[in-house]
Amino acid sequence: MARTQGSHSDITGPRVRDAALSLFAQHGYAAVSMRQIAAEVGVQAGALYNYTSDKQSLLFDLLKSHMDQLLASWMAQPEAPVAMQALEQFTRFHIRFHSERPEAVFISYMELRNLTPENFAVIEELRKDYETKLEDILRAGVAQNVFSVREPKVTAMALIAMLTGVNTWFKSDGRLSLEDVEQVYWDMVRKAVSKRTD
Amino acid sequence: MARTQGSHSDITGPRVRDAALSLFAQHGYAAVSMRQIAAEVGVQAGALYNYTSDKQSLLFDLLKSHMDQLLASWMAQPEAPVAMQALEQFTRFHIRFHSERPEAVFISYMELRNLTPENFAVIEELRKDYETKLEDILRAGVAQNVFSVREPKVTAMALIAMLTGVNTWFKSDGRLSLEDVEQVYWDMVRKAVSKRTD
Repeated sequence: MARTQGSHSDITGPRVRDAALSLFAQHGYAAVSMRQIAAEVGVQAGALYNYTSDKQSLLFDLLKSHMDQLLASWMAQPEAPVAMQALEQFTRFHIRFHSERPEAVFISYMELRNLTPENFAVIEELRKDYETKLEDILRAGVAQNVFSVREPKVTAMALIAMLTGVNTWFKSDGRLSLEDVEQVYWDMVRKAVSKRTD
Repeated sequence: MARTQGSHSDITGPRVRDAALSLFAQHGYAAVSMRQIAAEVGVQAGALYNYTSDKQSLLFDLLKSHMDQLLASWMAQPEAPVAMQALEQFTRFHIRFHSERPEAVFISYMELRNLTPENFAVIEELRKDYETKLEDILRAGVAQNVFSVREPKVTAMALIAMLTGVNTWFKSDGRLSLEDVEQVYWDMVRKAVSKRTD
């Protein structure tokens, strides 16, 4: 059967993506078959190919759309006039965006190894684009004489790892609200790049 | 055949562990069979059961021995008299220890989901033990009036995530040596917990 675009795949598409995301996050990409994804969606395995050509395309779509959404959401934030404000905005934005998508964040880190080299290069480029947003804020803060950062690229990667780490422990019914957590992390980020070194 | 302890498993044991670690890191636990592990070691699948009762035990052994080594290595560090020195020691130790074991670090994060609840509880306890080492340093620094840390537990988890993140980008043949990287991270850690907040 020829692959078709139309109402069928429009309806099934998001359900296929949700099923793939959930199964990849639970079992790992290599352990999940197209048949399992089809069963989770409630369609025949053959019907899946109306939506996606193969499992690799599905993984790539998930990782790429995660990065596209991240970049688009960041670009939609109001422009902050000075570096200190931009850094606070980035810190809070990053924590909120990632805490809402634990499975996508998990597979985006874990399944990089299972992308083809061509697909990996695309995702890697988008990740670098995002890191560069933070790196540019750090460089602006140095230029504005409010931050002291010797290695903006390394610092950007370090701060992003710290902020994404919230996902490994945060529970929405825990002692701290996400707002509290943002504040604790913002205090650390602000101080980590501050000019005071004593 | 009864499971035996002896020269055969003494020789094969480390090779089985190395093979399992490498295959789990490459493909994910769920996608790797005992047969594949045996093939990697160069023994019959049946011979593997002289060494390990099942795949779950193998995963648990890998994750537990990683945490046991981490805790033992930290405890073997010379005692630092004041909190500032202890924090620097922890920062440098954590980066070095983890950068030497990228596969063990990767599966220790990624494969937690594949542990049985009983095994997960053991690993979780060891992870908390390690986090508490850093938390205790942060509390000592607050008591010594050299650190300002409102949430020692959250701060410990945040700093550990930041430091472990080195593994996602560091290349030993890159522009910065590991010693350079340690210094950049130590500057950030020191400032992040500093009393200065402007």
